[in-house]
Amino acid sequence: MKSPKNISSQIESLSKGDFKNKIAELDFNRSLRCGAPEAILCETKSIEQISEIAQEIVKNETHALFTRCDEESFEEIQKIIPKAQYYRDAKCAIWGQAASQKKDTISILCAGTSDLKVAEEAQCTLKWLGYTADTYSDVGVAGLHRLLGKIEQIQKSQAIIVFAGMEAALASVIAGLVSCPIIAVPTSVGYGSSFEGLAALLGMLNSCSPGIGVVNIDNGFGGAMLAHRIIQSSAK
Amino acid sequence: MKSPKNISSQIESLSKGDFKNKIAELDFNRSLRCGAPEAILCETKSIEQISEIAQEIVKNETHALFTRCDEESFEEIQKIIPKAQYYRDAKCAIWGQAASQKKDTISILCAGTSDLKVAEEAQCTLKWLGYTADTYSDVGVAGLHRLLGKIEQIQKSQAIIVFAGMEAALASVIAGLVSCPIIAVPTSVGYGSSFEGLAALLGMLNSCSPGIGVVNIDNGFGGAMLAHRIIQSSAK
Amino acid sequence: MKSPKNISSQIESLSKGDFKNKIAELDFNRSLRCGAPEAILCETKSIEQISEIAQEIVKNETHALFTRCDEESFEEIQKIIPKAQYYRDAKCAIWGQAASQKKDTISILCAGTSDLKVAEEAQCTLKWLGYTADTYSDVGVAGLHRLLGKIEQIQKSQAIIVFAGMEAALASVIAGLVSCPIIAVPTSVGYGSSFEGLAALLGMLNSCSPGIGVVNIDNGFGGAMLAHRIIQSSAK
Amino acid sequence: MKSPKNISSQIESLSKGDFKNKIAELDFNRSLRCGAPEAILCETKSIEQISEIAQEIVKNETHALFTRCDEESFEEIQKIIPKAQYYRDAKCAIWGQAASQKKDTISILCAGTSDLKVAEEAQCTLKWLGYTADTYSDVGVAGLHRLLGKIEQIQKSQAIIVFAGMEAALASVIAGLVSCPIIAVPTSVGYGSSFEGLAALLGMLNSCSPGIGVVNIDNGFGGAMLAHRIIQSSAK
Amino acid sequence: MKSPKNISSQIESLSKGDFKNKIAELDFNRSLRCGAPEAILCETKSIEQISEIAQEIVKNETHALFTRCDEESFEEIQKIIPKAQYYRDAKCAIWGQAASQKKDTISILCAGTSDLKVAEEAQCTLKWLGYTADTYSDVGVAGLHRLLGKIEQIQKSQAIIVFAGMEAALASVIAGLVSCPIIAVPTSVGYGSSFEGLAALLGMLNSCSPGIGVVNIDNGFGGAMLAHRIIQSSAK
Amino acid sequence: MKSPKNISSQIESLSKGDFKNKIAELDFNRSLRCGAPEAILCETKSIEQISEIAQEIVKNETHALFTRCDEESFEEIQKIIPKAQYYRDAKCAIWGQAASQKKDTISILCAGTSDLKVAEEAQCTLKWLGYTADTYSDVGVAGLHRLLGKIEQIQKSQAIIVFAGMEAALASVIAGLVSCPIIAVPTSVGYGSSFEGLAALLGMLNSCSPGIGVVNIDNGFGGAMLAHRIIQSSAK
Amino acid sequence: MKSPKNISSQIESLSKGDFKNKIAELDFNRSLRCGAPEAILCETKSIEQISEIAQEIVKNETHALFTRCDEESFEEIQKIIPKAQYYRDAKCAIWGQAASQKKDTISILCAGTSDLKVAEEAQCTLKWLGYTADTYSDVGVAGLHRLLGKIEQIQKSQAIIVFAGMEAALASVIAGLVSCPIIAVPTSVGYGSSFEGLAALLGMLNSCSPGIGVVNIDNGFGGAMLAHRIIQSSAK
Amino acid sequence: MKSPKNISSQIESLSKGDFKNKIAELDFNRSLRCGAPEAILCETKSIEQISEIAQEIVKNETHALFTRCDEESFEEIQKIIPKAQYYRDAKCAIWGQAASQKKDTISILCAGTSDLKVAEEAQCTLKWLGYTADTYSDVGVAGLHRLLGKIEQIQKSQAIIVFAGMEAALASVIAGLVSCPIIAVPTSVGYGSSFEGLAALLGMLNSCSPGIGVVNIDNGFGGAMLAHRIIQSSAK
Repeated sequence: MKSPKNISSQIESLSKGDFKNKIAELDFNRSLRCGAPEAILCETKSIEQISEIAQEIVKNETHALFTRCDEESFEEIQKIIPKAQYYRDAKCAIWGQAASQKKDTISILCAGTSDLKVAEEAQCTLKWLGYTADTYSDVGVAGLHRLLGKIEQIQKSQAIIVFAGMEAALASVIAGLVSCPIIAVPTSVGYGSSFEGLAALLGMLNSCSPGIGVVNIDNGFGGAMLAHRIIQSSAK
Repeated sequence: MKSPKNISSQIESLSKGDFKNKIAELDFNRSLRCGAPEAILCETKSIEQISEIAQEIVKNETHALFTRCDEESFEEIQKIIPKAQYYRDAKCAIWGQAASQKKDTISILCAGTSDLKVAEEAQCTLKWLGYTADTYSDVGVAGLHRLLGKIEQIQKSQAIIVFAGMEAALASVIAGLVSCPIIAVPTSVGYGSSFEGLAALLGMLNSCSPGIGVVNIDNGFGGAMLAHRIIQSSAK
Repeated sequence: MKSPKNISSQIESLSKGDFKNKIAELDFNRSLRCGAPEAILCETKSIEQISEIAQEIVKNETHALFTRCDEESFEEIQKIIPKAQYYRDAKCAIWGQAASQKKDTISILCAGTSDLKVAEEAQCTLKWLGYTADTYSDVGVAGLHRLLGKIEQIQKSQAIIVFAGMEAALASVIAGLVSCPIIAVPTSVGYGSSFEGLAALLGMLNSCSPGIGVVNIDNGFGGAMLAHRIIQSSAK
Repeated sequence: MKSPKNISSQIESLSKGDFKNKIAELDFNRSLRCGAPEAILCETKSIEQISEIAQEIVKNETHALFTRCDEESFEEIQKIIPKAQYYRDAKCAIWGQAASQKKDTISILCAGTSDLKVAEEAQCTLKWLGYTADTYSDVGVAGLHRLLGKIEQIQKSQAIIVFAGMEAALASVIAGLVSCPIIAVPTSVGYGSSFEGLAALLGMLNSCSPGIGVVNIDNGFGGAMLAHRIIQSSAK
Repeated sequence: MKSPKNISSQIESLSKGDFKNKIAELDFNRSLRCGAPEAILCETKSIEQISEIAQEIVKNETHALFTRCDEESFEEIQKIIPKAQYYRDAKCAIWGQAASQKKDTISILCAGTSDLKVAEEAQCTLKWLGYTADTYSDVGVAGLHRLLGKIEQIQKSQAIIVFAGMEAALASVIAGLVSCPIIAVPTSVGYGSSFEGLAALLGMLNSCSPGIGVVNIDNGFGGAMLAHRIIQSSAK
Repeated sequence: MKSPKNISSQIESLSKGDFKNKIAELDFNRSLRCGAPEAILCETKSIEQISEIAQEIVKNETHALFTRCDEESFEEIQKIIPKAQYYRDAKCAIWGQAASQKKDTISILCAGTSDLKVAEEAQCTLKWLGYTADTYSDVGVAGLHRLLGKIEQIQKSQAIIVFAGMEAALASVIAGLVSCPIIAVPTSVGYGSSFEGLAALLGMLNSCSPGIGVVNIDNGFGGAMLAHRIIQSSAK
Repeated sequence: MKSPKNISSQIESLSKGDFKNKIAELDFNRSLRCGAPEAILCETKSIEQISEIAQEIVKNETHALFTRCDEESFEEIQKIIPKAQYYRDAKCAIWGQAASQKKDTISILCAGTSDLKVAEEAQCTLKWLGYTADTYSDVGVAGLHRLLGKIEQIQKSQAIIVFAGMEAALASVIAGLVSCPIIAVPTSVGYGSSFEGLAALLGMLNSCSPGIGVVNIDNGFGGAMLAHRIIQSSAK
Repeated sequence: MKSPKNISSQIESLSKGDFKNKIAELDFNRSLRCGAPEAILCETKSIEQISEIAQEIVKNETHALFTRCDEESFEEIQKIIPKAQYYRDAKCAIWGQAASQKKDTISILCAGTSDLKVAEEAQCTLKWLGYTADTYSDVGVAGLHRLLGKIEQIQKSQAIIVFAGMEAALASVIAGLVSCPIIAVPTSVGYGSSFEGLAALLGMLNSCSPGIGVVNIDNGFGGAMLAHRIIQSSAK
């Protein structure tokens, strides 16, 4: 809960503005430079900051992606961008969407059910960019037949985003079975010596199968952006 | 608390389903391959996911084990599997149980009272698999006579599961006194430089007594499963 | 120095073979599955193992890549594969090469001179796979004009491999200036709190610019293989 | 919430005083030795301790700075020092201020909007010491033009305080573009392998651009104090 | 090299004995308590200490195992125990051997050729205890067909010892395919963020497949001892 | 809050007892062996466990010390041991006390006000054992005159317990000024790269002044117990 | 030893040039931007690279600083820049020097004799930039009188560079006694849990005295450069 | 080897003196303040520095202790202090000795033979201070009878110094059996996840038995100095 209810008005009067710092200078030409617009990471911003950013966007753009956005933040966004849609499990809000629906094949592989919430951040990001990914849930290596039974379909992908926590062995196994680039997203699923995703991160970085690019722990957005750059580059 | 009460219905309507990802593909033939069915780790799953998994299980199986399951999750499980039993301290729910009651001797050793909550996860798992373990609480090395007074009985075990936090010295001491395999479960009991069980984990991995297999911090379930595989293998 | 000279013959007679373990079962169909043959990491293997592997390769293949290969190991390889070529700075040995010379644009960016030795491992790997990369040395962010002066040329790349040690800020800066996928290779260049490349690795994983896939510290080979998969996938 | 409401009076009677330890012996001559008075870090102190410290100050001084001060603590301070002003985003309370308004040029650079809350702690501290800093928000390296567009103005600074989380590349980039001392404040903005600011801290310590002094993670106060010492020293 | 050649005799005269500490009090009844005699870890002992220990053993026992024993140490051992045999790759010396040749099926799985040197320490230990293990080299997950082609044979094991470095995914994969206990030995094979075996260790501890007991990095001896205890216990 | 209020009675009925493990086997002869009775660490125990332990104590002893005891736990203790006294800041409950009031001089030094809560755990422990310590608050090295002004008095101590967080420099400074043993208790006071007391712990372990024994982070109890052993030993 | 002598000419012929990468693009206008020319870190460069860089410098500049330069590297430099002077303890080579001798007061404080080798890197750098620093050796806190006896002289400094390993308490103590900016250089002096300077680094970052800017472990060069920027800025 | 032989005289001429820093200001009144003279840690000092320090000592003192002193350093010391005696295993040199032979009972416990080299540093230090310690080697917990067989004698100690590597369980076990203060010295004996003594250090800090003071890894000197302060304090 970001804005405590019971603050005396005296304190409140000082909290807004403080040093009247400009809250955000959005990078509206990023799309031209990088092939995709800037997205807004909400988690580390205050409600006031998110509100100002949304106002800035609505004046300059026709679309937006808000990630790691809790419900309270979304309610604020919705006041300013009524057409924004919220994806609760993914904690994403989307406004607008890429015009052309792309036909490229991006596959999403999830080791376990618990990894889905991170995968859905990637799905939101891809949807916003105009892609529809094929998703394969629960294909972790503890029951290898689940993955092997679908491998022919998976091998047709142009890029694969793998989501796995714990020891994240799925990244190595899939990289040894296909020829396309693998984007590995370690998740914080696990406990004890998983150290909030560190074990998965190290597992993916040290894979015995080459051809894997790793992003930050729980970074579904970053995984999708890398897939987008790969697809986009192949059109050059 | 997993499902906040005060969400506007507008938001709610988007949260269920999102990308309509298949929530779980259970590994119903694991019992054949590995000698024990799949268990469900609840902690990192949403109530909706646990509910769907329970429904899937009830269609295909006659038993189930849910670990790291809080009360809210259990209430959901109970709606679907009314015969499920809940063990609050262990945070486990059990449905069904192995038919044959096994006579093998698995011993559980707890260094301190605080380790019992992890040990009870192992006890639930063993009960579900048809074993009854002998438990020795409070046999930590600060008062060595408590362990030495029971050592003749303990020496008859076919496998010993040791639960200890802090410096976890009990694993080394017991491994030097018996000939059966030792399964070491480091617990997160401690504070400061115990680093949530890391000190105990490193202590057990670096034991001067050989014959110890270590599992993840607080992994009572994993300790029990290794004991089961050991007993099961000896029947070959 | 891997094989000490002054061992008595009595000891020697036991050292070869020991348990007569099969030294290597090479994965000769990896090319079909993954689009590139298996490469041999020499650093952690004994001279005897490298020798046996080279013999195995020469019977089955027409090309090979040996990475992290010191001069002593190369001398052994050369006895068996006389046409193998050695790249000392890169510590790579190459035999054979992809038939078709690819015209795709892969760029290599090096933050500093010290990163070149890792970059050359990538150059060897790319050469072996039939690519010629454009290399930009000394474009680190301490003197930003060096990078900005070449940015138009760099923006034409289909994939960029960035090599940087210390704080590795180059990855973030370049990712904000181009639209193609960025492959980030942290190097162990630095001292003290660089912790042998850890600072660079964390810097690249936490980049504020999306679209970066990170590989292991000093993994020039892995960086090149990911670039190859990206190019290869775009031909689908 | 530091003081739970529902404690029985019996317990309460024991909590005040306990061992009647003297709560604080303030360092009232620090200003003479170090050129700035002692500030009070509230976060790790109880309400009772903060209250006693405020009473001690009001008896001996005409000004005070309270950092990492939550609203509950401020309400207690205000009872004793009614003229104290609270800056909610900065979590600072100020009483009194340096007489002379200094004309030196200290610049504050923020990589992203999320870093502002730490930067505002520095702004409060500087205001208390009699400085007004120029602040440049959202000049992170993902969109380099935002920084480069303002660089001529920034180059006139006598000291620059840089606030950045994630990989904190901004510190290296700015240090390569100006000649004044750079004070680098890593922030805990980020997630996963940012390890609560560790990635930013290591990035700043390992900068390829020399001339940077680093302070603790999220230490806006310390950054401002170092800037003050630099300005103060130049007057010698 | 442990004993420098060029020390003046004056210094030498002080080095032997120093405080005349008793060098070792061997635990000759460990076999009775734990089912296997004490083994001697040479790496951290001086030549003088190893020599005294060998003399102590030869007076009391008819067999011995020396691990992490370099050639210089072995030459000293051989002077005292001429029948001792040296295994150079395994860095083990064996004297005597268990009388009965056991028929139990222990399998050794090696992810890569580089892991063999650790596996051979386990093979020496098992040989000394009277077992012959089946070894499967190069069955790492990058080429899954190599493992799957042998799985029926492997499934007959009573215990499996898995040796893997880098991300160590083999442990998880095999645990999902068999029902016997898995002993996981992480190896220090790898570089960069493998952190000398830490990535492999964490991978094995966080496996998504239960039934795995982990030992210390590169601890082939400990892996074999745990296998021995498992087999021994099944005879109860 | 350990016992949630709104559990359905159905769940409750399973929670008590679970596997009917004996909750605690207290070490009532520790006083004879170690010169001080066992104390009860409450933090990691459930209310039920604390209650059973209190009942066990009241049957066998005439005194008790409960550490890291929150108010809810104390209320439970008080039901069973009505004469127990609670020290809220110290989070300790004491019942009974050593008969003889000892005259030995133990000094407690606190670097800052924030360290007092840990120091008070030591004060409680010492009081329970029959000592009264002299306490010097706020003698941290940022204002060295505060320490130097009291040094003659402090030099008369038989043992000094130092409490400091952040960089914990006080331990080194005091150890260079006195001749008695220094017991160093690192506290978790600080933020960012203090890593919850790790910086203080490392600082104390690496002191350039010899004669310091370090205990766990925030372990006021352990500091007091070591002081007690030192005093007790001097009486031999 | 960087260039092994016994390489066959066949291998040698491949090692020079490899991919004919441009070795260095020196940043000759850094002096204009940053107020000091680029320095060359030799440690991570090959002899060939250092040689080429020296040739590049001699064509464009009239001065140079080579840091972390071993004797073999210096001999190569001297062939190209005969007037270069070598400082063996500092591992620095200097060519040319700032024309004007600056009169500003920079003080260097060394906690122990072992820190001098890092301090001398700073002294070389300052000498190259035209400063002469006052050095105070052996003023560590274990014998506080050594520092206090010189404090009046030290208080006149415009900037102080503190070199300390182990727990690095000197930084906190001096920062509480003076008003000028403190530059803290943690050294790797120590062993065990000093973790090669990590303890000192954390100690300095977490100082209870504000006004300290920290540089990388053993970074004498960086410490001097920050002092230079501070002095240079005060002239604005 | 600290001083390479083949340096050209030209370089040599610059190496001595460099900046003519005063090499050491010894703390000759430490004995008065702290009850024991300063000792010289040689490991991190150059031969020249050790030589100058020895000359300084011989002018002012009648005794000295040099720790972590290799043979080359001792040869230099012996030139200046011919009566110095060298203890090679302990790597200590002693000159002079406390006049009175103390009768206090300090016991040294070593878990394994490999820990003796650290214990002998403590023995040297104690000898220099006038104590003779009783040493118990090889009393590690893997064979508990070895410790229990000597416990009555050990219980008479006034202070016990415990040396143990690996998991260091001996510290906890002995602390539960005696009443005197325990000084715990973790050693770097072990491999893999012992992380050069970190596992032992954490084990000792997190002991379930109170009354233990821990010093740095491998710090035999520090352990002895703390024992000395304890004995010395008891004489007050």
